[in-house]
Amino acid sequence: MHSHSLVVDLYELTMADAYRREGMAYRPATFSLFARAIPPGRSYLVAAGLDDALSWLEELSFGAEELAVIERLGLFDHEFLSWLGELRFTGHVRAVPEGTIVFPHEPILEVDAAIAEAQLAESFLLNQITLQTTLATKAARCRHAAAGRAVADFALRSAHGVDAGMKLARVGRLVGLSGTSNVAGSDRYGFPAVGTMAHAFVQAHHQETDAFRAFASAFGTTTVLLVDTYDSYRGIDRAIEVAGECRRNGTEISGIRLDSGDLAALARYARQRLDESGFPALRVFVSGGLDEREIDRLVGEEAAPIDGFGVGSALGVSVDAPTLDTVYKLVSYDGRPVRKTSTGKETWPGAKQVWRAHDWSSDTLALAVEPPPGPAWRPLLTEVMHDGRRTPEGQVSLAEAHGRFEHEWSTLPPRLKHLSAPTSHPLRVSSRICQLAEEFDAQQRSEEAP
Amino acid sequence: MHSHSLVVDLYELTMADAYRREGMAYRPATFSLFARAIPPGRSYLVAAGLDDALSWLEELSFGAEELAVIERLGLFDHEFLSWLGELRFTGHVRAVPEGTIVFPHEPILEVDAAIAEAQLAESFLLNQITLQTTLATKAARCRHAAAGRAVADFALRSAHGVDAGMKLARVGRLVGLSGTSNVAGSDRYGFPAVGTMAHAFVQAHHQETDAFRAFASAFGTTTVLLVDTYDSYRGIDRAIEVAGECRRNGTEISGIRLDSGDLAALARYARQRLDESGFPALRVFVSGGLDEREIDRLVGEEAAPIDGFGVGSALGVSVDAPTLDTVYKLVSYDGRPVRKTSTGKETWPGAKQVWRAHDWSSDTLALAVEPPPGPAWRPLLTEVMHDGRRTPEGQVSLAEAHGRFEHEWSTLPPRLKHLSAPTSHPLRVSSRICQLAEEFDAQQRSEEAP
Repeated sequence: MHSHSLVVDLYELTMADAYRREGMAYRPATFSLFARAIPPGRSYLVAAGLDDALSWLEELSFGAEELAVIERLGLFDHEFLSWLGELRFTGHVRAVPEGTIVFPHEPILEVDAAIAEAQLAESFLLNQITLQTTLATKAARCRHAAAGRAVADFALRSAHGVDAGMKLARVGRLVGLSGTSNVAGSDRYGFPAVGTMAHAFVQAHHQETDAFRAFASAFGTTTVLLVDTYDSYRGIDRAIEVAGECRRNGTEISGIRLDSGDLAALARYARQRLDESGFPALRVFVSGGLDEREIDRLVGEEAAPIDGFGVGSALGVSVDAPTLDTVYKLVSYDGRPVRKTSTGKETWPGAKQVWRAHDWSSDTLALAVEPPPGPAWRPLLTEVMHDGRRTPEGQVSLAEAHGRFEHEWSTLPPRLKHLSAPTSHPLRVSSRICQLAEEFDAQQRSEEAP
Repeated sequence: MHSHSLVVDLYELTMADAYRREGMAYRPATFSLFARAIPPGRSYLVAAGLDDALSWLEELSFGAEELAVIERLGLFDHEFLSWLGELRFTGHVRAVPEGTIVFPHEPILEVDAAIAEAQLAESFLLNQITLQTTLATKAARCRHAAAGRAVADFALRSAHGVDAGMKLARVGRLVGLSGTSNVAGSDRYGFPAVGTMAHAFVQAHHQETDAFRAFASAFGTTTVLLVDTYDSYRGIDRAIEVAGECRRNGTEISGIRLDSGDLAALARYARQRLDESGFPALRVFVSGGLDEREIDRLVGEEAAPIDGFGVGSALGVSVDAPTLDTVYKLVSYDGRPVRKTSTGKETWPGAKQVWRAHDWSSDTLALAVEPPPGPAWRPLLTEVMHDGRRTPEGQVSLAEAHGRFEHEWSTLPPRLKHLSAPTSHPLRVSSRICQLAEEFDAQQRSEEAP
């Protein structure tokens, strides 16, 4: 596989060449990456993906193999190829830390760099920030719904490819899920690997009880028995039988998993049978088509005695909101604030800062050069890369990012956490930004006059 | 990054260990991978992802690095690790060729192998077949809607990660899109790289016309000018101005792109202005929030004079149906057909074949050992891997797979291609399968009797 430097849209390369030909390539520019809107049903986004974005920028380079690919496109001359071979990312990045709660029109990151360098980053940065922010937001909603119970990522099989499966483990760790079924993801992101057994394991044995015994004998205290392959009520009884056998051999198995049927009713039956059989510590896990609303219903309305949830495809593809209207827009070029005024897709000009009121009453979108709106406001964007190298703020471990998310989450007002009644968070746009936009539009109009 | 052999759910490893401990690991098994249901609004699925599935099986092995990761999980003893270090996939795979139209409950592939080998493949096979089948189906719908006009994949930025972005290019090639914006995907899958320019390029110039001139001067006949950065009507006029300048210098630019606003009205205006200005061959491309229904509306109801569509996030994540209820189920173990009977998730027992009536009137799900239902039926599954090695049928190039899709598509009845009125395709289950299921259930009941 080629270096990720080729994971770009063709037009990033053609524009870079055109900038170069015009002598514009090294003029300073600022690009702003933000979501234009929040998907229906959501109140907040959990910013994620910065670490991969910074790694791509650090590693940006086109070696002989990449240049050969670009040459084969038949669009570029040798001058461009040799120029591209020398290109590295030498600019700065300001960003909100991963795990920060953000709202529409608030930059997740801004790139201050030579326009050719910043332009090339568009495709990859959007790809990773969009993916990881989408998944982190969904995972945070699932965790919130579980109200303290464990939520495990079982979604590798339904994630969109290997990279998404890995990043799912990453954002699960970021927002405090309990573990992932993905072995590679667990290892890479220092996140517990979790799992039970598949129906196939039960089916491959002549009797369900044989399967339970074999698994418990191999895995002892970590054993979770899947009880719904044939009849869940019988499965529960058989699990209790095997748990009793294990106890007589000195082992307490961990739990059972329900994967189909009326999960609340089955969990109540299981809990009652387990308790009356002397297994109050044996846990009840459930899975099967769960999303945050179903978890919320099971935990809330149903008050089902469930200890943990395994979440699959609804989490894996963020099924109700699989995409996010993120953009990477030029907001300043060669010292001049710019904007686009396309119908319905207008952007605010200038390099920015987001200020957040300490009491979460509102945010303010201001120019990066503006002072804070007042003493009770904190800035969200900090410099994470300078001259192409990560600053200390750009070298945050995933464990630290998780800690930051926990802190952020603990202060987030309940109204913004609500799962089914989204509220919008007020964003004030500074008068200086509005003024710049008006000046820009007036300038455009004057240039368009005959 | 580790080998993809670690891209497995933890339970695949624990089950493999349990099979090994019980002396079951090398008993023959058949697993069947199929979609349990078709997403709302769909009539068919385009099977895809087989090539990557077979590559994973060919490359399955756990070297020192992978074994160290597994050892660190703290669940496995050295006997298992050394056994796993020797494990390779030595089984057979029967599958439908990529690009085949399939329906729910029809196996996309079946793995006949030692149960431990076949079990390990579950996570990765589901991940890739689900992703690629989801995206190929969406891409086929977009192409169908465009009714012969070009459809380009502009979705790298919104795809769920790098792997999904690459596979999007792959399935675009499979189902006959016109090209991809993804440079790495274009190179890897021999698919034209396409692209225009971003709004940033226009914004970085003092005047829109300057941006158009610069781009046309760099890229000549491949130039497509993005005209909606400020005011699309003026943008169109400026593009015509620059197209005229180019013509006077001996160059005909390729087209313009509209990315916002009322695309049908703007396309009509653009076409009329281009024609009356002497540019009848200059093409009009559109993009911006398109999906197959909007393409269909623009092409059909609006009869808009559009030459090509660039499709982004709706294609990139298959936004209306981002997931597919695919499963990988044990259907036979040690010569014995098996099934699961979980509520609402019952499966049919036995290794299977799908027979399709030549006139697409219906399909028949039969046991692999059954003869054809009659002379006018063709089998869909063929052996693509034998003893761990690809057969000739497993070594199909993407170009050949595309050819096969074209043939398949040309015979697919219009009722099944309809974009908004899905029809279900009749699937008959053979009496031998039904009989096996009944026998299995009777056996289960007799074993459960007190």
